[in-house]
Amino acid sequence: MIRFFEKDPYSPIQYVYDVEKILYKGKSPFQEIVVIENPFFGRMLILDGVVQLTERDEFFYHEMLVHVVMHAHPEPKRVVVIGGGDGGAVREVLRHETVEKVFFVEIDEEVIKVSKKFFPTVSCELENSKVEIKCMDGSEFIKSRKGDIDIVIVDSTDIIGFAKSIFTVEFFKSVKESLGDNGMLVTLSESLHFHRDMVLGVQETMRLVFPVVDLYTAPIATYAGNWWTFSAASKALGLREMRKPGISGLRYYSDEIHRHAFLPPRMYEKLLKKSLNW
Amino acid sequence: MIRFFEKDPYSPIQYVYDVEKILYKGKSPFQEIVVIENPFFGRMLILDGVVQLTERDEFFYHEMLVHVVMHAHPEPKRVVVIGGGDGGAVREVLRHETVEKVFFVEIDEEVIKVSKKFFPTVSCELENSKVEIKCMDGSEFIKSRKGDIDIVIVDSTDIIGFAKSIFTVEFFKSVKESLGDNGMLVTLSESLHFHRDMVLGVQETMRLVFPVVDLYTAPIATYAGNWWTFSAASKALGLREMRKPGISGLRYYSDEIHRHAFLPPRMYEKLLKKSLNW
Repeated sequence: MIRFFEKDPYSPIQYVYDVEKILYKGKSPFQEIVVIENPFFGRMLILDGVVQLTERDEFFYHEMLVHVVMHAHPEPKRVVVIGGGDGGAVREVLRHETVEKVFFVEIDEEVIKVSKKFFPTVSCELENSKVEIKCMDGSEFIKSRKGDIDIVIVDSTDIIGFAKSIFTVEFFKSVKESLGDNGMLVTLSESLHFHRDMVLGVQETMRLVFPVVDLYTAPIATYAGNWWTFSAASKALGLREMRKPGISGLRYYSDEIHRHAFLPPRMYEKLLKKSLNW
Repeated sequence: MIRFFEKDPYSPIQYVYDVEKILYKGKSPFQEIVVIENPFFGRMLILDGVVQLTERDEFFYHEMLVHVVMHAHPEPKRVVVIGGGDGGAVREVLRHETVEKVFFVEIDEEVIKVSKKFFPTVSCELENSKVEIKCMDGSEFIKSRKGDIDIVIVDSTDIIGFAKSIFTVEFFKSVKESLGDNGMLVTLSESLHFHRDMVLGVQETMRLVFPVVDLYTAPIATYAGNWWTFSAASKALGLREMRKPGISGLRYYSDEIHRHAFLPPRMYEKLLKKSLNW
């Protein structure tokens, strides 16, 4: 049996996957890009040795990354997606009819090419006329916008490595300046099981900049630690409330999952006070 | 680096753990028993190649296995724990002051011995005078009780293998007969990510016997699929309601987690109707 051993230095469990086929193996200026076929998960995108998505379960991640803030915002029209070269986040954003424009900022255009070729069900909306693709650093792009953005979605690789510039106070300040009055930001923030310091780090950094910050989770089997978190921030409105009806046709996200996904209040408070007993 | 490769035929991801020390390796009439030391999880108990508990995260599993039904029941006095030779479930049961008697039915007494030696913080209540240890098959023991039990807790190894006799209609019928009017049953039922057919199988089998059946989840990093489920059944009372104040001093379970852990109603309905879109 041919096997892929995931190379995640921040996971105390190493995940190993059977490989039916290696469909692609290349190197961009930023990272190694691999696509394999697994009997259970289907095609898998692997960047620098870490699983980014699988055909089978990508919808958990992409729906939960996108739809919580998109439903909390009263009328999201202009959206920025940073990273997520596979196109899954853009696909979910465009389900919302209010959206007029998506700035899709991916530093590594090789990822876009690979996704268009091997993940057509994920990259399917990248040719949509509402999408403007920018192959550049997300933090640079954000500095160029002032007050005209409704939602910023950060769909990066892990917090470590070259993506770290989009988890800083400076970046969050630029995001705040780019956003309109009801603007919101969401970013992945690692696992509550394995990376609590990173989860806390993102939360604390966001809190230095935004008046409203919250945390919600989703179960994602192919991300180390699995109890995956998303950190969301808002300039004014709370994030736990939906301000329009849920979009139909989704596979995991729904109005009940929106409410369900946020950390229960006392547990969240304990997390922030570092008084969780584990 | 010495490593342990988990041998779970029902997991599409193989989990691999670093091994600092092999503390114990033996064979009982029922299974292979191994104890290792891992730098992140501490000591780990492994039965037939599958991780059963780790010092670091066992409280997620044991608290969630025990406290949901123990708080849903108005006054649990007589409790049966089947399996769970490590003693973790018994420890949690005895936190409830109403409890007068725990029948602890573990088929493999070697597991009890190993746990007493290597997991003192887990097995710590096994000498409690309220505990009666029965080294026998759980389904045989249950047949001997008629209406005098308040709660039955099944803390077995995976549903496959020699534990399968405690996931049958016959077993659930015996459990029902063993229970008093407000009696409740809980059992692990595998992962929603990897074993949905098994989750459904347990639910459907329980529904043939009990009028009230429900499903709740907990995030457990060291169980394959991680989005772990517990199937609970009741002779009369609903399971989502707590009927006494939450016990203090727990690490994960709380009143808010009790409400939070149950599958949202529409999602649960879809699961049962096999209409989940994944």
